Amino acid sequence: MFAGIDLGGTNIAAGLVSEDGKIIYKDHVRVKGGQDGKYLVTDMVGLLQKLCCRAGITLSDLDSIGIGSPGLIDSENGVVRRASNLDLTEFPMAREFKEQTGVSVKLENDANCAAYAESRFGASRDTENSMMITLGTGIGGGIIVNRKIYTGHDFGAGEIGHMVIRAGGRYCPCGRYGCFEAYASATGLIRTTKEKAAKYPKSLINEFRLDEIDGKTAFEYARRHDEAATEARDEYIRDLAVGIGNIVRVLYPDVLVVGGGISMEGNDLFIPLREAVRDELSFGHETKILKAELGNDAGIVGAAIL
Amino acid sequence: MFAGIDLGGTNIAAGLVSEDGKIIYKDHVRVKGGQDGKYLVTDMVGLLQKLCCRAGITLSDLDSIGIGSPGLIDSENGVVRRASNLDLTEFPMAREFKEQTGVSVKLENDANCAAYAESRFGASRDTENSMMITLGTGIGGGIIVNRKIYTGHDFGAGEIGHMVIRAGGRYCPCGRYGCFEAYASATGLIRTTKEKAAKYPKSLINEFRLDEIDGKTAFEYARRHDEAATEARDEYIRDLAVGIGNIVRVLYPDVLVVGGGISMEGNDLFIPLREAVRDELSFGHETKILKAELGNDAGIVGAAIL
Repeated sequence: MFAGIDLGGTNIAAGLVSEDGKIIYKDHVRVKGGQDGKYLVTDMVGLLQKLCCRAGITLSDLDSIGIGSPGLIDSENGVVRRASNLDLTEFPMAREFKEQTGVSVKLENDANCAAYAESRFGASRDTENSMMITLGTGIGGGIIVNRKIYTGHDFGAGEIGHMVIRAGGRYCPCGRYGCFEAYASATGLIRTTKEKAAKYPKSLINEFRLDEIDGKTAFEYARRHDEAATEARDEYIRDLAVGIGNIVRVLYPDVLVVGGGISMEGNDLFIPLREAVRDELSFGHETKILKAELGNDAGIVGAAIL
Repeated sequence: MFAGIDLGGTNIAAGLVSEDGKIIYKDHVRVKGGQDGKYLVTDMVGLLQKLCCRAGITLSDLDSIGIGSPGLIDSENGVVRRASNLDLTEFPMAREFKEQTGVSVKLENDANCAAYAESRFGASRDTENSMMITLGTGIGGGIIVNRKIYTGHDFGAGEIGHMVIRAGGRYCPCGRYGCFEAYASATGLIRTTKEKAAKYPKSLINEFRLDEIDGKTAFEYARRHDEAATEARDEYIRDLAVGIGNIVRVLYPDVLVVGGGISMEGNDLFIPLREAVRDELSFGHETKILKAELGNDAGIVGAAIL
């Protein structure tokens, strides 16, 4: 049995995972705000012990334990270099875990865990080279090369959200202009939706308060043939296709897995998206663009099998 | 002793290479136009035999023979899938070579050979992960992951020139709009130089015939403080920095090697380029941006040590 912990900004989720990637027991606790790394580890250990108790085993019976953490992760030394939404800098998480439990743990970036889980048991299983992108508040990316996580120099690769697709375009908090995630994240889509609502005063979207518009609004109202929503959705899909076209030309993965909130639109996203990528790449391409299969469990599963 | 053949649209260059990447003997022949793959191989064999004769050995004494070819190369089966400037499609070059000589040969894409040679003996030596881009008529790319050539799905990765950096921008013959190479290749620079000359009627560049403007013009006249040339050069460097910024964020190589005609500008290119990439990536980065060291020999050396 393997254990995986998915450390998020809001929750710590953990699960006991079988060899074939199935979650046997799963639970979560809320992250307490403002606590330092030590106590975060204590909470993870507590959660894990609860799961082990349910399974009738102890921590040391586990074949391996993995933690997926947001931020820049030194997976060799088990250090959280920088994780702004956990307020951690240079925190030796694996060492702390070992000190509290006597048990070793592996640490990896959460987007890499999810990509790895999909490549083992999900949408990109049985492929050599794949990539997963997560369309959420930002755009996360995890690259799999020769069935292994690719982290590049100093663990910093895969920052696909900060690839510029429209030089001089929308400002991104990373400091660049025209980043992929300024257009193709949920945040980007919300911005586009608001812009289109302003352009079409008669749009139904204008009946919302601005803060009620979310990543689903454009897709939902496009299904009702609202002009602003349709334009926002179509522009969103074109921008997403530009970024995916770039991934295909540079990395040419066997499969590109798309996860995150917006991937839940299912066929309303994937059918026009595949067509838009085909239009983008008129020389042709063979990368399969597939919806993530493991959903929120990908982080736990990926961490468990590191 | 290893042998490398660099197959170009104009010349076939070949060399005998020592274990430490030094070229001992080297020669070339012109590619005859319109000849089919069989005769191309015959010319390669002839060239190689000439070199072996000079070295006092025979083909079968060689430890290995490699060929770097432009186009889409199936390096597993030694097939040139598509090479438009050699007019070859689905040509089994390794098999043909074996039939004519009885000796086995390895085949790889030429940009990958150059990147590999640099990663073994050139600017990116002793690194795990690197990329080489070649600023010529187009922009070629070769990706090295864990000291090996990364070719992605169906050998099609590394097409960095066709990564869009300015969606909706300049049309590229690949069918996309705003490709990196539409701006940052020599062809892109020439186009920008002409646009700037038209914008500044008093520019010295206007004394040229349009077809005399080449990839050196902007750099040369910027050194003479010509306004149009300075603007063209600076814009060129910014666009190049956007594409390199994308490479750093996605692949984060230890070293990015820059080769091709424009890299010959040396410090006039590299000093402002490194500064522009630093400006692009204000979060910081550690990728070294270095001039290619092996020059035109990279193709031969890379092919020899495949």
